Amino acid sequence: MKKIGFIGVGIMGGPMVCNLLKAGFDVHIYARHKEKQQVQDAVAQGAVFHEEKKDVIHGMDAVLTMVGYPSDVREIYFGGDGILETADPGTYVIDMTTSSPDLAVEIYEEAKKRGLHALDASVTGGDAGAKAGTLSILAGGEQGDFESCLPLFQAMGKTIVHEGPAGMGQHTKMANQIMIAGTLSGVCEAVAYAKAKGLDCEKLLESVLGGAAASRQLELLGPKILAGDYEPGFFIKHFIKDMKLALEGANKEGLQLDVLQEVLNHYLLLSAQGYGEEGTQALIRYYMEQDS
Amino acid sequence: MKKIGFIGVGIMGGPMVCNLLKAGFDVHIYARHKEKQQVQDAVAQGAVFHEEKKDVIHGMDAVLTMVGYPSDVREIYFGGDGILETADPGTYVIDMTTSSPDLAVEIYEEAKKRGLHALDASVTGGDAGAKAGTLSILAGGEQGDFESCLPLFQAMGKTIVHEGPAGMGQHTKMANQIMIAGTLSGVCEAVAYAKAKGLDCEKLLESVLGGAAASRQLELLGPKILAGDYEPGFFIKHFIKDMKLALEGANKEGLQLDVLQEVLNHYLLLSAQGYGEEGTQALIRYYMEQDS
Repeated sequence: MKKIGFIGVGIMGGPMVCNLLKAGFDVHIYARHKEKQQVQDAVAQGAVFHEEKKDVIHGMDAVLTMVGYPSDVREIYFGGDGILETADPGTYVIDMTTSSPDLAVEIYEEAKKRGLHALDASVTGGDAGAKAGTLSILAGGEQGDFESCLPLFQAMGKTIVHEGPAGMGQHTKMANQIMIAGTLSGVCEAVAYAKAKGLDCEKLLESVLGGAAASRQLELLGPKILAGDYEPGFFIKHFIKDMKLALEGANKEGLQLDVLQEVLNHYLLLSAQGYGEEGTQALIRYYMEQDS
Repeated sequence: MKKIGFIGVGIMGGPMVCNLLKAGFDVHIYARHKEKQQVQDAVAQGAVFHEEKKDVIHGMDAVLTMVGYPSDVREIYFGGDGILETADPGTYVIDMTTSSPDLAVEIYEEAKKRGLHALDASVTGGDAGAKAGTLSILAGGEQGDFESCLPLFQAMGKTIVHEGPAGMGQHTKMANQIMIAGTLSGVCEAVAYAKAKGLDCEKLLESVLGGAAASRQLELLGPKILAGDYEPGFFIKHFIKDMKLALEGANKEGLQLDVLQEVLNHYLLLSAQGYGEEGTQALIRYYMEQDS
């Protein structure tokens, strides 16, 4: 495992490529926008940029994808010059995008027919985790394939778990996002209540961070919410995609996730108001702007 | 500050009394059920039991209350032989029950007329925090009164914050409970999703506990949820009381907390099904029993 193709060199993919380079892999990248900062950084650190997608697929030991939406994943795998068509038999093809679990299974099955080893391996930890190489990597696929790819995963992540067969990595990521939706909405509703009652919100955070209400969302986003800082760590538009996938998946099992649905509705409203490019903490707007 | 009256020697009050005794206070207790284990434990450690409520109010430097519902608080303060009628002028009267912020203000104002120093000082940290003396104490009232009572609070808690004037301790507790409602519902919806999809839930917890979905609720209650252990650390019936108070408070400010309302609805359904005496983690029943 030496030559790695990487498609999708953005906020997450960029630092992941750099960590693969640091670990000694020979990384070939393809991105639609060569001028992007992350692409420039990756090239400066030794990544080889290719103008043609097929050149980071053909001749590689593994091809990693980290793109935006399931439609992008589908295009890259099933489209013209796509991974399934272009990868050499025996190649490991790993989608790290947060994407549809069903699509992951579809890719796995099609890949198997073609002698490719497919894994779905979505991540958590955000751009900070991507930079630090401390991502959690949630992998689905065959045990043997997972083990073969461990050196790759270890270059990018800290907590690396084989969750089960194809699709299970994505399902785990869905569960993760469902938790975040509940937690962050609780934080925002609490802050909205506190502001309405005239509480000192700095004291509120100090008071509750050590207790049963503590959460990583509160820690990371609480101070941003109080400061009115809605810069994206994680885009609302991407969170909406994830929540929709999770709800679709739940509905298929006859499971109604009312809180997730409620949180999604709030975000859809914010998105319709033009806030889709803000960070998820901008959920507080839904509550603070109820009367405006 | 030496002689302390304590009313409400239950799961929380019992260990709080014991910590006051350890710190050298002379604690006089009143409880409706003398035979209760917590009362027996407190007496064994040196608390003086009184048959009459007024005997733990009159002649005390401070009177602490830790009871169940706002109606209990009202009765103990405003009822016959109550605190407002019976306490000596100059006494510190501190309600530590999670109760109505408006009632806390009402008590404060009436107490002031009678020369009493009232504080609302609800706590977080559960029975474990009460035993360990590591509660967070969220206090509302006058700054000077708060400072005078610090030795008491330090005997029972670790994080001790003066949140603002009367009622602000209770408001902080409400904000805390709002956060917990969102967080715990996120955890339960995620586990329900994971089970529906056949995920290995132990691996799920391992995968997400270090990341952005991490929370104290997940840490404390996740394993209980997986084990089907619904023993109460915190009763559903008490959480329902808290959520109702928080929603009433929000509505008064024209603030709609949709997620909290949704979570309350789920708990009300569980309560109607006879689960009010279970722990809050039994919220998972709402999702697991949707089809049954």
